Amino acid sequence: MNRGFNFSAGPAAMPTEVLERAQEELLNWNGNGCSVMEFGHRTPEFTELLEQTEADFRKLLNIPDHYRVLFMHGSASHQFAMVPMNFLAAHDTANYLEQAHWSKKAIKEAQNFANIHVQKGFHQTEEGLAIVPESEWQLDDAGKYLHFTSNETIVGVQFKSEPKAFAGKLVCDMCSDILSRPIDIEQYALIYAGAQKNIGPSGMTVVVVREDLFEQMQTHRVPSLFQYPLMAEHKSMYNTPPSFGIYLASLVFEWLLEQGGVEAIEQVNQQKAQLLYDAIDASNFFHCPVAKNSRSVMNVAFTLSNPELDSMFLQQAKEQGLLALKGHRDFGGMRASIYNAMPLEGVQTLVDFMQEFERKV
Amino acid sequence: MNRGFNFSAGPAAMPTEVLERAQEELLNWNGNGCSVMEFGHRTPEFTELLEQTEADFRKLLNIPDHYRVLFMHGSASHQFAMVPMNFLAAHDTANYLEQAHWSKKAIKEAQNFANIHVQKGFHQTEEGLAIVPESEWQLDDAGKYLHFTSNETIVGVQFKSEPKAFAGKLVCDMCSDILSRPIDIEQYALIYAGAQKNIGPSGMTVVVVREDLFEQMQTHRVPSLFQYPLMAEHKSMYNTPPSFGIYLASLVFEWLLEQGGVEAIEQVNQQKAQLLYDAIDASNFFHCPVAKNSRSVMNVAFTLSNPELDSMFLQQAKEQGLLALKGHRDFGGMRASIYNAMPLEGVQTLVDFMQEFERKV
Ligand SMILES: Cc1ncc(COP(=O)(O)O)c(C=O)c1O
Ligand SMILES: Cc1ncc(COP(=O)(O)O)c(C=O)c1O
Ligand SMILES: [Mg+2]
Ligand SMILES: [Mg+2]
Ligand SMILES: [Mg+2]
Ligand SMILES: [Mg+2]
Repeated sequence: MNRGFNFSAGPAAMPTEVLERAQEELLNWNGNGCSVMEFGHRTPEFTELLEQTEADFRKLLNIPDHYRVLFMHGSASHQFAMVPMNFLAAHDTANYLEQAHWSKKAIKEAQNFANIHVQKGFHQTEEGLAIVPESEWQLDDAGKYLHFTSNETIVGVQFKSEPKAFAGKLVCDMCSDILSRPIDIEQYALIYAGAQKNIGPSGMTVVVVREDLFEQMQTHRVPSLFQYPLMAEHKSMYNTPPSFGIYLASLVFEWLLEQGGVEAIEQVNQQKAQLLYDAIDASNFFHCPVAKNSRSVMNVAFTLSNPELDSMFLQQAKEQGLLALKGHRDFGGMRASIYNAMPLEGVQTLVDFMQEFERKV
Repeated sequence: MNRGFNFSAGPAAMPTEVLERAQEELLNWNGNGCSVMEFGHRTPEFTELLEQTEADFRKLLNIPDHYRVLFMHGSASHQFAMVPMNFLAAHDTANYLEQAHWSKKAIKEAQNFANIHVQKGFHQTEEGLAIVPESEWQLDDAGKYLHFTSNETIVGVQFKSEPKAFAGKLVCDMCSDILSRPIDIEQYALIYAGAQKNIGPSGMTVVVVREDLFEQMQTHRVPSLFQYPLMAEHKSMYNTPPSFGIYLASLVFEWLLEQGGVEAIEQVNQQKAQLLYDAIDASNFFHCPVAKNSRSVMNVAFTLSNPELDSMFLQQAKEQGLLALKGHRDFGGMRASIYNAMPLEGVQTLVDFMQEFERKV
């Protein structure tokens, strides 16, 4: 098999052009005589790469100077602890929307460090799983922030726009839809995203945080590498950063700029999702468990009307180079993750296969 | 320039064969139709890779079952906090040897979490910088462990064998000499090593820890990803691991086994170091600031008798493909890091260049 269309939820597909470029210069980066991963991080060459990576990221999401961009070690799950540890003193409260899998993990972690006010964010409606309308939320006004997950990867539920409450004090787990569409950063105190969907390989997390919040932060007895102000002071180089991950991110950002930026990729993303949801809705065999107004443009969850055919579906898909369509172990069914790197052609091939499969069974 | 000989202290040179293999399968790993970095971490394919990586690591260092091997996010600096956070309650004490740069950072971080008893580990002797003889150490017997740095990367000072004190309760920062020689793991409670010297790219750290210590650990209010017992329970997959780093580590371990393991590479390492130190000692122009009994086999620090020639030396070296010889910004001079991936030929080329340089000036 050559390269297939990879629908993995994460670690997820990278643009083929990016991997080809990385492949080409893997042993000798920019004619320097060694790989980028063999390069000292305090050298002018690497420092320049890091600065360019940040500049491209800022350009893509239109991030002004009073927000700091951090390339951090580790994953989104680290941020589940870092956010409350930095933002909350022991007597402080914060609001968390409880959506599905990931927000529950964020809540559980935050509860180790402070009082957390939990608001149910998802409910089952006649049309399927949906976001609870904001008019029904009851939040704690004294909360320091409101935490939500812009796109719930596992069940394929996505906010179409930012909540209105806590404007400027939103904290967002943007793991699975960052860079897929423009955002209004001024609504946020902080956003974080593990790299392994729309940015690069796992093991790195991008954080954007409003700098004026640093002075209120509770960094006493917080591990140094967990302190946002310290990481910002050292420009993501308090210690050796995950340099190869940063390099790949730089190539992805360059690629995205070449595609026309997030405004352009959003159009493609919408088209891809539309194509797939339309096919599912038109079919009596496939079913989407999510209500239309809450459906994710990044992760399309669907079920077969006969779950006994699941493994046959997956097997035949794989044989045709349609990879990693299995749903999350906690939810079953299928899930097609169609992040930025998935071309329209990949989704078209999946839709054709689904229709063929339905005809045959 | 083609690939040079890269003497970087870290991120450091990888074996060229490993990079070639990674290059070959970067877009299509094992015929799976995608890159290893695009692979879901809960798939059978990745799980098998992780298990094989651990098995090879255990084989290389002869690690028995009652020690757990963890592939963790982040870097050695994370461990500076994790070790005291897990091992020490607020009233507990631990002993730390104060050696140079890195151990000082470890001490500073640990002091945020508990009482630390500091013993001076390095001193200046007539022969140069040296390890203080163990007979002169005064340790706190009530300490939970003794922390030391087996190889002080920055100044090139290395323990020839484990301290005798705190046998079984040693905690070691083994960043820059892990896998360079056999170790007697039973002397240790825990060892940790950031990947970017002898293992793989930065952004991952390997931890080996005695499992029976888990029950005493202080995991209350420690971030989940900082808890050794939890990481062990989840076999390094509490969340998405740094999967591409693990993959490269697996290739490095395979390569090392092919070289004959750590016993064989130790011989080569000794030969390389001997060659370089002999050349420095034989010369009146180059000087090693470290006493013979404390010299590192991994990082060879040396100075030019006329520091004004430093930049000319570096420039000419680079032109001949001898890269990254500049000493650490805090110490100046030169440093040739000659980890496992540096072939004997690279050191010979360096020695030839040094002799030529000396002749000419
Ligand atoms: C929305 C969301 N948040 C958090 C995470 C956790 O990320 P990690 O495993 O890198 O900690 C994921 C992982 O898929 C996710 O999709
Ligand atoms: C001995 C030693 N300890 C700790 C570190 C810190 O590693 P990191 O920058 O990955 O946190 C280094 C880095 O070179 C080192 O050589
Ligand atoms: Mg959620
Ligand atoms: Mg339908
Ligand atoms: Mg030290
Ligand atoms: Mg000399």
